[in-house]
Amino acid sequence: MPLLENISCLATCASPDGQDDIGAIHDAALVWKDDRIMWAGPAEDLPGSYVGEERWEAGGRLVIPGLIDCHTHLAFGGWRAGEFADRIRGRSYLELAAAGGGIASTVRATRALDEEALLARAREFRSEMLALGVTTIEAKSGYGLDLETELRTLEVYRRLSSEPGPRLSATCLAAHVVPPEAAHDRAGHIGRIIEQILPAVADKNLAAFADVFVEESAFSVREARRIFEAGSALGLRPKLHADQLTDGGGAVLAAEVGAVSADHLECISPEGIAALAQAGVVGVTLPIATLYLNQDPPPARAMIDAGVAVAVATDFNPGTAPTYHLPLAMMLACTRQRMTPAEVLKGATRFAARAIDRETEIGSLVPGALADFAVIDAPDVDHWLYHYRPNACRAAIVGGELLAGRPLRA
Amino acid sequence: MPLLENISCLATCASPDGQDDIGAIHDAALVWKDDRIMWAGPAEDLPGSYVGEERWEAGGRLVIPGLIDCHTHLAFGGWRAGEFADRIRGRSYLELAAAGGGIASTVRATRALDEEALLARAREFRSEMLALGVTTIEAKSGYGLDLETELRTLEVYRRLSSEPGPRLSATCLAAHVVPPEAAHDRAGHIGRIIEQILPAVADKNLAAFADVFVEESAFSVREARRIFEAGSALGLRPKLHADQLTDGGGAVLAAEVGAVSADHLECISPEGIAALAQAGVVGVTLPIATLYLNQDPPPARAMIDAGVAVAVATDFNPGTAPTYHLPLAMMLACTRQRMTPAEVLKGATRFAARAIDRETEIGSLVPGALADFAVIDAPDVDHWLYHYRPNACRAAIVGGELLAGRPLRA
Repeated sequence: MPLLENISCLATCASPDGQDDIGAIHDAALVWKDDRIMWAGPAEDLPGSYVGEERWEAGGRLVIPGLIDCHTHLAFGGWRAGEFADRIRGRSYLELAAAGGGIASTVRATRALDEEALLARAREFRSEMLALGVTTIEAKSGYGLDLETELRTLEVYRRLSSEPGPRLSATCLAAHVVPPEAAHDRAGHIGRIIEQILPAVADKNLAAFADVFVEESAFSVREARRIFEAGSALGLRPKLHADQLTDGGGAVLAAEVGAVSADHLECISPEGIAALAQAGVVGVTLPIATLYLNQDPPPARAMIDAGVAVAVATDFNPGTAPTYHLPLAMMLACTRQRMTPAEVLKGATRFAARAIDRETEIGSLVPGALADFAVIDAPDVDHWLYHYRPNACRAAIVGGELLAGRPLRA
Repeated sequence: MPLLENISCLATCASPDGQDDIGAIHDAALVWKDDRIMWAGPAEDLPGSYVGEERWEAGGRLVIPGLIDCHTHLAFGGWRAGEFADRIRGRSYLELAAAGGGIASTVRATRALDEEALLARAREFRSEMLALGVTTIEAKSGYGLDLETELRTLEVYRRLSSEPGPRLSATCLAAHVVPPEAAHDRAGHIGRIIEQILPAVADKNLAAFADVFVEESAFSVREARRIFEAGSALGLRPKLHADQLTDGGGAVLAAEVGAVSADHLECISPEGIAALAQAGVVGVTLPIATLYLNQDPPPARAMIDAGVAVAVATDFNPGTAPTYHLPLAMMLACTRQRMTPAEVLKGATRFAARAIDRETEIGSLVPGALADFAVIDAPDVDHWLYHYRPNACRAAIVGGELLAGRPLRA
């Protein structure tokens, strides 16, 4: 039963409420057994029965629940660096798409990779995320868009799950866009999603969620509703890419269909905010995508004030968010979304767990929760997200095992 | 005479003109002798006389001139993480300053440190900057504001210069703000700068530049002009903090006094842009400070279009830019200032060298230049600044010596 001592600040995130309530305990200790937390509290209250246990040393640092990146597109082929420079030079997304760029180019590159190649790339990203303190990753398909490649992508996530590293939570995003080969047959593509892809995903138990990109350039509210109905009937809970480039009614739809989260939300309407709050849908903000698309940030403060639980994730993908650096997203949520460091931490731990329906097991450090945590080289959360560094994580622990960083033996 | 081979892209920055002209050579080789570049060009043109030399291996990566962070406040005491959270919560800079915060709190913390303690902190930052590929750092005083502490800060930079690591270029910023003890005697403080601090700095040869923060909350154009005149007479070239929070005529003054650079420029006027272009003053943008202060970015595109050489630096300091991550500043210059990756690289190498008056020796990889360069884990500059990572630098070489990163022996 290891005991972690000399924690300057332990953010337990014990409360399910309060965006800024991170349950911070100064001069704390943490005890776990196998893969579960046994005790968390002020060091002076540590029961004597734990004191003789295997002792680990936090070195006067901050300890947080392992970070949860609740929105990524982890497995994909190729990169789109040229488009990044082209967009800066003033070429529009539509121009680039017309020239064969955009999501379609990643679909081509992803279909061209076999399972081993796709796995090798995703494995490396996952390992680098772990080093940053990320212990759970939501990972979407959506660069296959045909039955075979969607299943291959999700199979990669299943195989990765069995390797030591961050936990994975898989989402089927067959409804990312209409693929080029179906450009003149939207109905046919939607039919294949509903009749072939989602049933096969559910049958093989390859995903927990069905996601739809609700946007003018992707799927309408009416189309999304049909896809969610089919998914829900198969046990796949709805998630949405909502109100990113325009207010397309995505957040309102999320509330209507009982989605676990609505993501992006740069253009969410006041009605959308009220709907999320009313329905208890997590609002997932993605500050890296907002930055790379040079957009104004989503109204995070208005969402928090309305009672929406706001999560923060990377959106890691090769087009609009080509970095898996969740602490960067968190710093940007502070500076651009005007969320305090405590609010952001809650949004990248407990509320991110809620956005993937795993709040009972991860995202907080309370007895019975999984022993997923990170040791951060800072005295507290304010200092960590203020003094941004390449990587301030000194150790990442998943299920009680130190998987990245330096040994913490006393 | 080492030879670096297998360079996928070598950005020589050989031309003094063209913001986006980085002199990129694909499939290149680089030869140096002692601390100077001997040859740079396409591998197929490598003279046979170099082929038998000591061979280093770039592994198909990008090689760039060592990064130059041409605006930092490297040595200071304390941190101001609490203010970061307070500002997000809505407290104004003036409220915080009235409560004893802001620059004044860093001045107190800096005065409280002895030279060894100040040196130890700056040494660690410098070492972490080197690991990011930074091989030259401009470092300002300005948290002493009295003769003793200004000299102590600059002495720290002189001592650091003698240790292996990035080169240092020192600037006296005694005119950062009027210190609290002189709040009712501005004229007295300015008199001490002119009659005591600048002469002592020049006498001990502790700095190359005299900087003034020209802003409503700091010094007026008229006050700054007097300080620059005194500095120039002592051989200290002018640099300015200009037009950051308001258009205070700083850029126009920079042109008038022949400053080597005008820095910040978020609020620069069209007249200011024209004046910088006309006078050949480098415009230094500081995207991290812009981000942390939640400002709109400076008009970098208008400056480039007008013919201003635009540099990019961190402004590393404990208040408004608490990170030394120059590649982060560079990525932000792409995403927020709409500069292409090539334009940004030129701004963090050759034009940054110009901003510290060292363009003949550093900032480009041409025969005769100092052998300061970095090996970046990316195939080219577009990919590097698009696929942002915690640290993509694999090796940093200063004066021909590998000082950070992994060995490159073939």
